[in-house]
Amino acid sequence: MSRLQLKHVTIVGVGLLGGSLGLAVKKRFGALVAGVGRRQSSLDEALACRAIDTAHLDAAEIVGRSDLVILATPVGAFESYLKAVAPRLKKGAIVTDVGSTKQQVVRWAKNILGPAGPFVGSHPMAGSETKGPNHAREDLFRAATCVITPDARTPRRAVTYVEQFWRELGMNVVQMSAAEHDKAAATISHLPHALSSLLMLLPQKKHVALAATGFRDMTRLAGGDAEMWRDIFLTNRQAVLGAIDDFDELLMRLRDLVDTADGEAMLSLLAAAKAKRDNFLSRR
Amino acid sequence: MSRLQLKHVTIVGVGLLGGSLGLAVKKRFGALVAGVGRRQSSLDEALACRAIDTAHLDAAEIVGRSDLVILATPVGAFESYLKAVAPRLKKGAIVTDVGSTKQQVVRWAKNILGPAGPFVGSHPMAGSETKGPNHAREDLFRAATCVITPDARTPRRAVTYVEQFWRELGMNVVQMSAAEHDKAAATISHLPHALSSLLMLLPQKKHVALAATGFRDMTRLAGGDAEMWRDIFLTNRQAVLGAIDDFDELLMRLRDLVDTADGEAMLSLLAAAKAKRDNFLSRR
Repeated sequence: MSRLQLKHVTIVGVGLLGGSLGLAVKKRFGALVAGVGRRQSSLDEALACRAIDTAHLDAAEIVGRSDLVILATPVGAFESYLKAVAPRLKKGAIVTDVGSTKQQVVRWAKNILGPAGPFVGSHPMAGSETKGPNHAREDLFRAATCVITPDARTPRRAVTYVEQFWRELGMNVVQMSAAEHDKAAATISHLPHALSSLLMLLPQKKHVALAATGFRDMTRLAGGDAEMWRDIFLTNRQAVLGAIDDFDELLMRLRDLVDTADGEAMLSLLAAAKAKRDNFLSRR
Repeated sequence: MSRLQLKHVTIVGVGLLGGSLGLAVKKRFGALVAGVGRRQSSLDEALACRAIDTAHLDAAEIVGRSDLVILATPVGAFESYLKAVAPRLKKGAIVTDVGSTKQQVVRWAKNILGPAGPFVGSHPMAGSETKGPNHAREDLFRAATCVITPDARTPRRAVTYVEQFWRELGMNVVQMSAAEHDKAAATISHLPHALSSLLMLLPQKKHVALAATGFRDMTRLAGGDAEMWRDIFLTNRQAVLGAIDDFDELLMRLRDLVDTADGEAMLSLLAAAKAKRDNFLSRR
């Protein structure tokens, strides 16, 4: 396969994900990276980390030069950025994103860029609870999975381009519908984040002081950016509600086993979880 | 403070905790460590790792030589081991444990050794999802917290002895009532384990394959020993039920915010969790 043609990229949002993407794109493709952000201070940080080459408070002033535009802000800002870049896209330019939810994002893109517009939804399943371009890592995406969610009307050329883009950054690319993505992400990412945040809120402060590594690890995700996660929950409401309800059913089943002191059923449940976990680890 | 007099220790249960304890005790005190276990194979492993010096299938045959007896099996086996060792204890010997629940354990000890018996409940808040003496680590207990739960009738000498024992292994010792311990442990340890196991059971297998580091870390505890955790849930039922109910209330509150798309309240909740988490980390 020939190398991807990529000379100029605009990354909208220069936080941890946008910054890491900038570093990776510069290293892999030698492309010029324009960063767009709301705050001059973040842009300055991203410039200082060499995650971007040029900095812009207004996407419209730079997007016309780019072969590829990547949205990397919290999902809640995507709609207005799509509106800002749509009239200025270069002919043949492709638009993608790194948002953690896909159905709402794809709907916005179809409304704004047209149902056969040059947009392919992406979700690189990589991240960190840290924030800001100064935590950016060139290898953040390597060896992780990236889900892309084209549909029947997405231009074939755009799908191939975006797929190859993530592959060249070292990712395993998986295609599925936006609906299936959102359901999967709700159980393996969005619900785990919710559980982590709620668990952090539960204990009295004096009890938190006693906590060991188990509690520390279970609450790592709770340290993530609150605004980003609010947007994720708001743009994947149905699937998150489904995951909460399914989880609550499991929690009530365990509650019942504790209440009735049913040690045998409890052992089966814990052993089943352990077996599934061991299997998950062995396949990684 | 003078060094603790400790020449011979019996450790009942030679898994990860018992094995790590054996290594630590030998290094710190130079004491002879007798290991008691149900299976010759575990005892052989513990001998091979030098976690114990002598191996015994029957506690009664060795316990009379020990200054200190430590129960380190799953909690469910404590009662029968207490019965086995009680009639053979050397004069002045002290008994403690490393169990994750304390009210039930203290009740058993008082019934079997007498209300002013030489038992002090201990819970070193350190562990791992790995199992068996071949994962034992001499430094497992260092810099972690150990809760001890004596009451008004516990002999003062025993309390001082056990407190000093854990201190000399590098632990921060905290005293509280068994009831308070169990409530704290339910929220910072037992519920987190339950959430981890249930979360592992939730996603479809094909979706698990997409999971990233967040899911991996949130399900680490689910890899723990099922029998040990069954015993913990069974011996701390009231506090675990309380923690499940309190958590469920938080989960239903979040569900409501997702359902009503209340972004502002969601942001406050996520930001409060993040602030508590950041504070927790900064104090470690």
